[in-house]
Amino acid sequence: MTQFMNKKENIVTEAIDGILMTAGGRLARLDGYPHIRVVLRADWDKSRVALVSGGGSGHEPAHAGFVGPGMLTAAVCGDVFASPSVDAVLAGILAVTGPAGCLLIVKNYTGDRLNFGLAAERARAFGCKVNMVVVDDDIALPDLPQARGVAGTLFVHKIAGYLAQNGADLAAVTAAAERVIAGTKSIGMSLDTCTVPGSAKEARIAPGMAELGLGIHGEPGVQQIVFAGAEQAVAAMVDKLGPAMADVPHVALLNNLGGTSALEMSVLAHELTRSRLGDLITLMVGPAAMMTSLDMRGVSISVYPLTPEDEAALRAPVPLAAWPGCHQIGAPIVLALPDGLSPIRPLASAHATARAFLTRCCEIMMTMEHDLNALDAKSGDGDTGSTLAGAARALIGAMDRLPLADHTQLYRAIGQELSQTMGGSSGVLLAIFFTAAGDAASSGLSMRDALRAGLDRMQEIGGAKLGDRTMIDALQPALEALHIGLDAARIAARSGADHTATLRNAKAGRAAYVNAWNLEGHADPGAEAVARLFEALAG
Amino acid sequence: MTQFMNKKENIVTEAIDGILMTAGGRLARLDGYPHIRVVLRADWDKSRVALVSGGGSGHEPAHAGFVGPGMLTAAVCGDVFASPSVDAVLAGILAVTGPAGCLLIVKNYTGDRLNFGLAAERARAFGCKVNMVVVDDDIALPDLPQARGVAGTLFVHKIAGYLAQNGADLAAVTAAAERVIAGTKSIGMSLDTCTVPGSAKEARIAPGMAELGLGIHGEPGVQQIVFAGAEQAVAAMVDKLGPAMADVPHVALLNNLGGTSALEMSVLAHELTRSRLGDLITLMVGPAAMMTSLDMRGVSISVYPLTPEDEAALRAPVPLAAWPGCHQIGAPIVLALPDGLSPIRPLASAHATARAFLTRCCEIMMTMEHDLNALDAKSGDGDTGSTLAGAARALIGAMDRLPLADHTQLYRAIGQELSQTMGGSSGVLLAIFFTAAGDAASSGLSMRDALRAGLDRMQEIGGAKLGDRTMIDALQPALEALHIGLDAARIAARSGADHTATLRNAKAGRAAYVNAWNLEGHADPGAEAVARLFEALAG
Repeated sequence: MTQFMNKKENIVTEAIDGILMTAGGRLARLDGYPHIRVVLRADWDKSRVALVSGGGSGHEPAHAGFVGPGMLTAAVCGDVFASPSVDAVLAGILAVTGPAGCLLIVKNYTGDRLNFGLAAERARAFGCKVNMVVVDDDIALPDLPQARGVAGTLFVHKIAGYLAQNGADLAAVTAAAERVIAGTKSIGMSLDTCTVPGSAKEARIAPGMAELGLGIHGEPGVQQIVFAGAEQAVAAMVDKLGPAMADVPHVALLNNLGGTSALEMSVLAHELTRSRLGDLITLMVGPAAMMTSLDMRGVSISVYPLTPEDEAALRAPVPLAAWPGCHQIGAPIVLALPDGLSPIRPLASAHATARAFLTRCCEIMMTMEHDLNALDAKSGDGDTGSTLAGAARALIGAMDRLPLADHTQLYRAIGQELSQTMGGSSGVLLAIFFTAAGDAASSGLSMRDALRAGLDRMQEIGGAKLGDRTMIDALQPALEALHIGLDAARIAARSGADHTATLRNAKAGRAAYVNAWNLEGHADPGAEAVARLFEALAG
Repeated sequence: MTQFMNKKENIVTEAIDGILMTAGGRLARLDGYPHIRVVLRADWDKSRVALVSGGGSGHEPAHAGFVGPGMLTAAVCGDVFASPSVDAVLAGILAVTGPAGCLLIVKNYTGDRLNFGLAAERARAFGCKVNMVVVDDDIALPDLPQARGVAGTLFVHKIAGYLAQNGADLAAVTAAAERVIAGTKSIGMSLDTCTVPGSAKEARIAPGMAELGLGIHGEPGVQQIVFAGAEQAVAAMVDKLGPAMADVPHVALLNNLGGTSALEMSVLAHELTRSRLGDLITLMVGPAAMMTSLDMRGVSISVYPLTPEDEAALRAPVPLAAWPGCHQIGAPIVLALPDGLSPIRPLASAHATARAFLTRCCEIMMTMEHDLNALDAKSGDGDTGSTLAGAARALIGAMDRLPLADHTQLYRAIGQELSQTMGGSSGVLLAIFFTAAGDAASSGLSMRDALRAGLDRMQEIGGAKLGDRTMIDALQPALEALHIGLDAARIAARSGADHTATLRNAKAGRAAYVNAWNLEGHADPGAEAVARLFEALAG
């Protein structure tokens, strides 16, 4: 997989320099490249307990993103998924530790434990007061002697960071960190593996499968399950977390493992609040990418039982863009719709011929759904058929409340229905078309002339002219030929639609943003829809 | 591609409810589901100019994430990549517009222009003061009559939002928005297409290619180029932006299109600062995901020439997690390494036999790199071979400064070299091993007994015992057999390494986090390395 990097060996130092240059002077680093990569607060005066964390890179924004007032004092960054060296950790400790001492916050991976542990020994030999805590929040493997440290580490950073910032001594900060570690439980799930820089992507997780209970270094999870949607995914994670949670209020941290879209993360947040743990979760951190596994399309949930003191520490604001805040969970606030959205509805009326004609038009549109989507996919987002078919279905559903016997009102009512049920440009353009046609009909114009007036108005607002590769290329000639007869209109529409396949430069609509080589040989789907409608009506 | 969603039809409403429930009461929505999806400030009192934006969903955190004091008043959310309906926009306008009026900020896509435009007309008919601006910042297609609106829209939200928050009237807010739009230029690049919910992923961008000049709805870009790294990628974008920029200070907005890792985004930030536009860019917003295209592995750069007033507006803090802040770009602050990292080096000395033996050991380790990586990939992250080979290469490079004639000092020096150049658990464990062996040798033990003492210390700190599926399973029997001879040690090491392939439960090291079915039949890579080393030395 292609990645936005240069040489693999330089990815971490280049990224750190990128972070420093855009941090507005808040952050500094030690002069130890390439082996020693320590990011620290530029304003640190050693007056309070220092908090040092870190580990392998590839978990950004952890850990450098959490260096700042109220969280970490320094982050020691290893290569991607590899622990930093003892010397790097030692450099970090020595650079930030004053008389108040230093707490190392280490995720429980062997390499980190060893390197941070040895560095702590060496720092103590220099007379530094150094404590170390090891976070082991992962509950994926309940009988494992050494549980991993994953995203729950953020609770430790935030709560210990709050205490240190407020002047607590090393013993108090360490005790708080150990209390948070004892109470924190995490579980992860992913839909795909991550892409390690410079390595081929592993095809371990088949499409349609999800891996449950995985760490943050690309190692396999404890089980694969058939994926059946966001609700089931959250339920599977909640089933693991539930037995480890007491029946007291908890904070949840909803962490994007890197490649999950923000849209999906919000859906997962919604599922978590309505899961069977929803009542226990009163605060949430995120959803956000905090402790990632590079670009992994996955998520983790961490939970921790709340006390008033911890809640205050978690909710205290910090000036760090990577910390998404910690908020009370509450039901959505829903406000009444403003007045003015519901125009007076025309009186419904029956008219067998109009009803049959309108139903037939709708049914014709519905038969085109697949073909038009395929045609639209050549130059756009492949939804023209679905948009038109959806409108047709909605109109059929609305038939009983339409003023079928009053043609003027009927045009307007169709326009109103379309504007209420459709999104997308074709929906509005059709709404404009019918609304304007209704206005024209009310002033006494014939059906043909009214439709022509609708076309004019649609062109005026939409900006498309004949030859711009839109539905107008079929609709305008068809309406002009309609005074001769339906068959002439059919021939004109088809000729206009076919002509759009030769137009290399779309001038309006989304196809206007597409290069000529994506357009040639394909008719515009809107024009094709018009041609097929006339063909079906005339046939 | 599997995605964290339930039914496609509900993805936007579920995501909005997730956003609202975790917003701590800051946000509300209108009671118009499913068609009307408007997110608005819960605390809005209509006392100032309202800012309404929105468009299709799939661009999160835009636009709901930017609703709050100092930015938007309301966001109108369509389906994924589809404009909201006229009624939805109208509902949003009517809900937030007071006597000061309302500015609609619309990205230039036909659907949005039409729906927002018609809604503005209808709102004016209700007596609302409504202005509308259309953002067209994309410069991908310079001769396009209608340039797209992309991530540069955020500059408009922030600057107009700042003015509105501070009480500017509708004319002033509109004029500022139009000024920002006139000056803003954006360009995007992606390494892969995005995954539209419910649709198959399009294989348009081949591996190794990058698409330049693409929009935010998955439509094809204007050209594909062979991708050659982060520096070239930024240069290609900068080549497009440069000709459109005056020689004055600019702010840049570095936007993650959704699926790019944070590590890569920081590398790109670094490249942008050192690109040929680096001197012109004095402020940066991001890097962060602000205007995404779902999970697209891409990036966009937007630039805008600065005035002091606009700089103040951009830098003013807002209480929104989605806004990453706007910071001065500066050279990295580099602090001197603390004292204590450089222990007194032993005096280098020559010893042909020791040099030849050590060199041979290193060369043997280097030949195993590929095999050990492959073996490690079965249960870990596939780097054991590279870690050991890297250490071997470093040792060979350090040969001239080693105290080769003093075996006690030599052990310690090897330990020191390894702790300075290697990360990862095996590096530290070997450093512990050699440092402790040196200590033992200094007290008069034989080479075999000194190595055995090193092993004991390594086990004590690392926690692994015989049978835990680590290198110890080969090293301990080999050292125990060494008093018989090298061949006995070779046989014992091989037997121990082979035995690890039958151990289904790793108890230490990263393999301990892996299920038994991933381990069985593969030897532990550390034990295999020991066995191969003894085989080569004895062979």
